[in-house]
This record gives sequence, C-alpha cells and structure tokens, in this order.
Amino acid sequence: MIQRIAILGTGLLGASAGLALRASGYRGSIVGWNRSKDGAQKALDAGAIDSIANDPLEAARSCDVTLLCVPIYATLDLMARLAPILTSDQLVTDVGSTKAAIVAQAARYYNTPDRPAFLPGHPMAGKERGGAELADPSLFCGAVWLFTDDPAWQRSPSGAELAAEWRELVIAMGSRTIDIDPARHDEMVAWVSHLPQFTATALSALLEEEVGGAPELKDVGGRALREMTRLGASPFSMWRDIALTNTEAIERALLALEQRLAHIRENLRTHALRDEFDQANKFRHE
Amino acid sequence: MIQRIAILGTGLLGASAGLALRASGYRGSIVGWNRSKDGAQKALDAGAIDSIANDPLEAARSCDVTLLCVPIYATLDLMARLAPILTSDQLVTDVGSTKAAIVAQAARYYNTPDRPAFLPGHPMAGKERGGAELADPSLFCGAVWLFTDDPAWQRSPSGAELAAEWRELVIAMGSRTIDIDPARHDEMVAWVSHLPQFTATALSALLEEEVGGAPELKDVGGRALREMTRLGASPFSMWRDIALTNTEAIERALLALEQRLAHIRENLRTHALRDEFDQANKFRHE
Repeated sequence: MIQRIAILGTGLLGASAGLALRASGYRGSIVGWNRSKDGAQKALDAGAIDSIANDPLEAARSCDVTLLCVPIYATLDLMARLAPILTSDQLVTDVGSTKAAIVAQAARYYNTPDRPAFLPGHPMAGKERGGAELADPSLFCGAVWLFTDDPAWQRSPSGAELAAEWRELVIAMGSRTIDIDPARHDEMVAWVSHLPQFTATALSALLEEEVGGAPELKDVGGRALREMTRLGASPFSMWRDIALTNTEAIERALLALEQRLAHIRENLRTHALRDEFDQANKFRHE
Repeated sequence: MIQRIAILGTGLLGASAGLALRASGYRGSIVGWNRSKDGAQKALDAGAIDSIANDPLEAARSCDVTLLCVPIYATLDLMARLAPILTSDQLVTDVGSTKAAIVAQAARYYNTPDRPAFLPGHPMAGKERGGAELADPSLFCGAVWLFTDDPAWQRSPSGAELAAEWRELVIAMGSRTIDIDPARHDEMVAWVSHLPQFTATALSALLEEEVGGAPELKDVGGRALREMTRLGASPFSMWRDIALTNTEAIERALLALEQRLAHIRENLRTHALRDEFDQANKFRHE
C-alpha cells in the first residue's frame, strides 16, 4: 500500500532511513526535503532519496507516508501545518527523541476517522555528528524503534493500515519495535539517553577548560577518555529541543547523578566506595 | 643487556606486557609470579611467561629487570621488600596508575650508586575487566607510556643502562613514551583517567538503581549508553588504591564535574546550555 514516502529532513536520521528503506527492499519512491538545499543534495547523491522537493507540504501531500526527521519543535510545527492539507488516507510518523509534546500534538490534529493518521516513533539510533554525509543503511539494524501509539485513537481504516505497514518497514530495516506509554518513554530516555548525553557534555566541557590547551593529554587518556567524551561532539541544535521538552525528567536525572558523584567524592577513603563499584559492576554484568 | 625479566603480577597488564615483549622480538627469558596460582597458570598457557615462580623475591633476584604489575599498595610493599635483596646491577620498574607515592618509595629505597635502580612507569592502557585471559600483545600499541623519572637520581652505570634499555623495550612494544613530573602526572590523570572512571562508576551505579530491574532498557540506550557505562565494570580492587593515593586531585575533579552538571541542570531552558555544548564540541573537534 505504501508507494510514496516523503522524508522531511534529510540529515543523518532521514537520509539513513532512506538508505535503510532501499536496503530492506522498499521499491516505492522517496522524495526528500531539507531546510538547507545542500543537505538535500547530499541525500540525493547518497541515493537516500529519489528526488528533492522544494516545499515540505507539497512533498507530503503527494505521498502515502511522511516521515518527519527534524528537531522536535520543527516536528510540532510541521505536524500543525500538515494536518489540514492531508487526508485520512495518509500517515505521518516521526523520529523525535521526546514524545509527550508530539503525542499531545497528534491528539490535537490527527487520528480521528476523517483526519490523517499520526504514529509517534523514536528509533534509538544515531551518531554524535549529524548530516546526510554520515548516513548509513544499517543505522537501525539491531536498534530498538520505540512507538508511543495510543490504542484509543480512532484512525480511518486506511490510516490504520498505513501505520501497520510502516511498522513492518521499520522491522524490515532491522529494528526491534517496542510500544511504550509516552510519559514512561520520556522518563526512561531521560535516564538511558539524555543523562548519558548531558554527562558527556559536562565532562567534555570541563576537560576542555582544564586540559584543552594540552592536546597531548587526550592521547594520554586513551580509549576510556575517547568513549566518555564522544557524545561531547553532539550538536546543541538537536539537544536544545530535547532539553526544552523533557526538562523535569532530565533535571531529576542530573540531580541524582550529582548526588551520586558527591557520595563517591566523600567516600574515596571509605568502604562505601566498594559498594558503588559493586553496584556499577552489577549494571554491566547482568 | 636485559636477558631475564620477572613479571610480578600476571593479570591483564602483566600478561599483556609478556606477550608484547615477545611480539616485539625480546628473546630473553620471562619468569612470572602471581598471587593466585590460577592467574600465573593462565599467563603461562597464553605464552606470556616462560615459567612460574613460587616466590616473587626469588624471581626478582634472578632477573635483570623486575616489572611490578600489581595494585599500588602491593607495589609499594614489594618495592620495600625487593630493595634489600637486589643489587645495583638490577632494575625494578612498574605500571602503577598514580606516581607520587611510588616515586617517594623509590627515593627512599632505590637509585643511589650502590642500590638497585627503580624507574617509575605508567602505560595508559587497560581494559574494563582484568585477568591474564584477556591479555593482548597489542594492548600497548599506540598507547602513551608515561615515566616519572627524576633526573637527580644517581643510579649505578648498569642501573642507568638497564633503565635506558627498558625504555627501548617499551617503544618496541608500540608505545610512545612521555616524561612527566610525578605531581603533575597525578593531577593530570585525575582529569583524563580517574574522573572518567568515577563518572562511569557513578552513572552505572545510579542506572542500576533506576532501571536495573528492566534489562530491556539497556538495549534501548544503545551504543551511547554502552560506552558511557563500559568502565562501570572496572574492579574496585584496582581503583581502591588509586582513590587512596590520589584522593585530593580526584576530589577536586569530581567536585568540578558536580558543579558543571548542576550548571547544566539549572540552564536546560537558557542560552547558557548552548555555551556548554559549544565548549564540549571544542574538546572533541580539536
């Protein structure tokens, strides 16, 4: 049923989705739009899309499925602008890293029998740097692709079918799908995704201040230092919207880590340090 | 000149050093001792040592060079016990992760014309788990091997020659050597090695508490979570001595990270968050 897909935002995730769709055997057309023409051209050159659209709304109007691969506020904005021009025979889905705001927007504009369908999605995949030039057809292989669908939504029969078919395409791209409540999603990713990111940002920023003037020290740190600061290269442009749409959960996680670090600092000479290592070992050995 | 080497402690580092010496073309003998017989047997089976010694002092007495690959307090203890039984024609060197205490012990017992020579060393290489079974002949390839030698030490001519020859063996193992002041060494590794370790321990211990009961969430976190918690598997047995011999520098680094995390937490909705990402990006892009 899915013959035409629009990918709005052909950065790392959008272009990788195009490549992964092709690699998984999808034979329909893929039209791409990107805010910068340069990014769209790179995605076209990489074979991630078949053609470049000048207008995101026109691209979506001509397609069965529209995949939104832009930051969260841009996603919310496109959702509002797409809803009135699409029909109940069309599906919009996304890859946004927080879901409560997007699900609220979906409930407002989508998923009644006479409106377009919206399926909120979040592939747990990425790289510390963005851009179509880093696109990878296997980016979603072995990754978890979360959906925060609402069983109470009343989609049109064709909208429901398109959503089911999109899930099959996601599985064909190599992902494992998990359904989760949106509030639980945002709480969970605060711990397993956002906290690691902000920790790496804090550590990298601190080390830039302390040893940034002595680049040979980065070699001294070796693999451990490289790994612990790799995410320090992540762009603010993407994380700004995450910080703004999941603030309370991230605040809780950061405060808990500050307290944990203080506990370790106060116990460098006591037996309590062993308990921390034991607990950390457990997380890695299970 | 180096014909016989004793490796005291045939865990990951000691056994890897044995394999790396062989791989680099060293043709002399290597005798190994380990506190647990099992670890010595594994090193022998792996080809990291030629024979197992029952007594570390006897092993050292029969060798030109003794390489100490045990935790720091065990290193300090062996240094004190070896000094009276070795001659000025013998060299002891080590791989300890903090150097101030070891350099003080060297100044006390070694490095006069009539005493054995001691060369304090620290290869910046390792894995998050220990043991001879993980030994790797290329562990030191491309790594930095730090020395905190003191130019004022008055070694015997043969002691000085052995130290120079050991440096050549280290380079033959694929390492780049850097000489650094011991106090500066300990301050620096607090930032680029100990802080990343204790951060990973704190993050892993916290996540074990928050999501440890839901192992599927570890898959959700993906590569970023795996990298940021890999060091969480590191053993307390090794890090205890590091915490005890570099306490003040580690306390300073941990406190600075706590403050940085608090700053990020308080600015999730402000422009200051961009500055943190920009600073972190700089550390990774240089």
